[in-house]
Amino acid sequence: MPLKAVIIVCDGMADRPVRELGYSTPLEAADTPAMDYLADIGVCGIMDPISPGIPPGSDVANLAILGYDALKVYRGRGVFEALGAGLEVRPGDVAVRCNFATVRNGVIVDRRAGRLDCRPFEEALMEVSKRIGPDVEAVFKHTTEHRAVLLLRGYGLSRMVSDSDPHRTGVPVMKVKPLDGTPEAGRTADILNGLSEMYMEALKNHPENERRRRQGLPTADAVIFRGAGQLPEIRSLEELYGVKSAVVAGNALARGVCVSAGMEPIHVEGATGSADTNLKGKAETALRALERFDLVYVHVKGTDNLSHDGNVEGKVRMIERIDRQLVSRILDETDLREVHIALTADHTTPVSVRKHTGDPVPIAVAGSCVRRDDVKRFSERSCAVGGMGRIRGRDVMPILMNYLGRVGLVGA
Amino acid sequence: MPLKAVIIVCDGMADRPVRELGYSTPLEAADTPAMDYLADIGVCGIMDPISPGIPPGSDVANLAILGYDALKVYRGRGVFEALGAGLEVRPGDVAVRCNFATVRNGVIVDRRAGRLDCRPFEEALMEVSKRIGPDVEAVFKHTTEHRAVLLLRGYGLSRMVSDSDPHRTGVPVMKVKPLDGTPEAGRTADILNGLSEMYMEALKNHPENERRRRQGLPTADAVIFRGAGQLPEIRSLEELYGVKSAVVAGNALARGVCVSAGMEPIHVEGATGSADTNLKGKAETALRALERFDLVYVHVKGTDNLSHDGNVEGKVRMIERIDRQLVSRILDETDLREVHIALTADHTTPVSVRKHTGDPVPIAVAGSCVRRDDVKRFSERSCAVGGMGRIRGRDVMPILMNYLGRVGLVGA
Repeated sequence: MPLKAVIIVCDGMADRPVRELGYSTPLEAADTPAMDYLADIGVCGIMDPISPGIPPGSDVANLAILGYDALKVYRGRGVFEALGAGLEVRPGDVAVRCNFATVRNGVIVDRRAGRLDCRPFEEALMEVSKRIGPDVEAVFKHTTEHRAVLLLRGYGLSRMVSDSDPHRTGVPVMKVKPLDGTPEAGRTADILNGLSEMYMEALKNHPENERRRRQGLPTADAVIFRGAGQLPEIRSLEELYGVKSAVVAGNALARGVCVSAGMEPIHVEGATGSADTNLKGKAETALRALERFDLVYVHVKGTDNLSHDGNVEGKVRMIERIDRQLVSRILDETDLREVHIALTADHTTPVSVRKHTGDPVPIAVAGSCVRRDDVKRFSERSCAVGGMGRIRGRDVMPILMNYLGRVGLVGA
Repeated sequence: MPLKAVIIVCDGMADRPVRELGYSTPLEAADTPAMDYLADIGVCGIMDPISPGIPPGSDVANLAILGYDALKVYRGRGVFEALGAGLEVRPGDVAVRCNFATVRNGVIVDRRAGRLDCRPFEEALMEVSKRIGPDVEAVFKHTTEHRAVLLLRGYGLSRMVSDSDPHRTGVPVMKVKPLDGTPEAGRTADILNGLSEMYMEALKNHPENERRRRQGLPTADAVIFRGAGQLPEIRSLEELYGVKSAVVAGNALARGVCVSAGMEPIHVEGATGSADTNLKGKAETALRALERFDLVYVHVKGTDNLSHDGNVEGKVRMIERIDRQLVSRILDETDLREVHIALTADHTTPVSVRKHTGDPVPIAVAGSCVRRDDVKRFSERSCAVGGMGRIRGRDVMPILMNYLGRVGLVGA
């Protein structure tokens, strides 16, 4: 049987010393027997997602962990959201993230339209989108709450356009502007501005808004765009390493990044991309996926959400739950002679900062090929003196694929 | 007296935990007092020949350890074999590796013609090669057993041609094909195909083949080509660092890589490039060379051969012999106030895999300038927590040359 691998990536799990925890990090404060066992039997290190000190977005960080030169191939976030939402995206397509927003007297008063479910608007906006032709096709898809994605397909499109989302309230919806002098950027801006007006018109007297008005709820009066993106120019993991791979992720962005690398997304009931996610279900799904795939990427988003909220206690509890319900379960059910298991975070999100920072993250890899080191605990500090030393995000996949015998020789 | 340096590179010495050795590596299982002393008094680290996870060929790995951006400058293996065989190679020349092969009924039945000594054919093929002109010159040189090299010199040649060696038996000698659309590649392919036929004709009734037929031995009926290469575009170590350097290597490939960097090859009687090599002779030669040269590169091939054979016990014994007959001897006879000694491997060749892999290798450097660390043993795991951290192959030469005061300041 060929060697296989699981990589577990806990979003924003790495942290800095926290005063309330006696200057331990949440990972150090948490009781994590399974993660510690993995570190104990494995080889450990620290990893800079991009390079030391550089805080990465989750899209760029996960692209790097998949082995790509993320800064070079990255072409905007929207495309990953579209892929994560299950849309098919082709080279040349432009995808943008959308929010439904509440507008009063010409200015945005709520960029999230009360976070209410906006699925009832999807059909009307999809219909309107069809009128944009004839040279371009637009697909509008609701995702969660106030969120949606818009995909443009046709010749001569460009991701080099500004957001119509002003990223603050009290101002009008902005005009999308071309960000370079190409006719493609100009044309894409025109299309998006046209759709922006058509959507506003369609939302004006939509029955769902009539209902919301009657009930005194925030209306969805506009769709605001941000993060235009196109597919990164990358070869799939199968092309690069000959592996069949799958992703188990509740979070659409992480899932989308993996799909862009050719991984098959596997749905897990109750995998929400939040702190209440179904970790047991993810573990079972990953274990079953290992029967069909060479590489399974398991992404847990909850740790990052709690970090952005500055929720110290919640982050510690979430890490403990990941340990018991995910890592422990995968370790118990896996034959380490056949499967390598890697555990890491995609970046540091200190609860004290509530934003991504550029600190390195811990990483541990266990399996039959690794050179076990003396590290006995999985944490930011203990792994820093491990046998793997300090690596970069883009080294992770070659290191794993080398254990699996999937990396071709350079030279002769 | 200027500071000097010796670097000892043991081919494929690094390994993974081996079950038969109680999950020690051969280097850990071996009794290596001299290597351990070097690690103890020196600074240690791990080194990725190219980058984490990437398995390098020996040519690329040694180019990197000499300080070059190996993937960028590498232009094929044949040229190193030609240099290693003592041929002069000029920019523009194309060199290929040759095997004498046994052909029956139009198909190759032995790619190595029984591994018999093929020197008796050299003169006839050299004569034939002269007829290839007028615009191109061909030099055919026998090296060892069934092996030879062929050098083409003239205008408009290219290394971008395929092998005529099918790399398996039961099929005919292949036609050399151009690998790109350049006229140079087409012309080079034509020349090689012409030589291929001329050699076959010349071998047909060669007296040595008549003799072999009479004695029932495998005949040498064809010369098959592989690994066309041209000189890497690199500056010599003397140009880069102002050092006079020499190489002590039984293996033609390693010697050729060093010669391409401007190092002087020093012959050692009995240095075979195999497990039975004359290590004491290499030690003596290296020590004598230190009187005339600033840098001496000692390459030992045997560890790699035994790894490719999966010979665990043999690899352990070979490492112990290197320790006693080479490392110990050089340490004993060297004044570490004047000479820095570096010890490493060019890549990992696990006995369990029998191929080069992309795992890092240990490195130790002793001498008056180093910052001694706490590492006391020379092994893959002990060096991983050393004071040098994790470096790349191309860092090794600048690190050594810096100790020697040979690296120019950048900036002001």
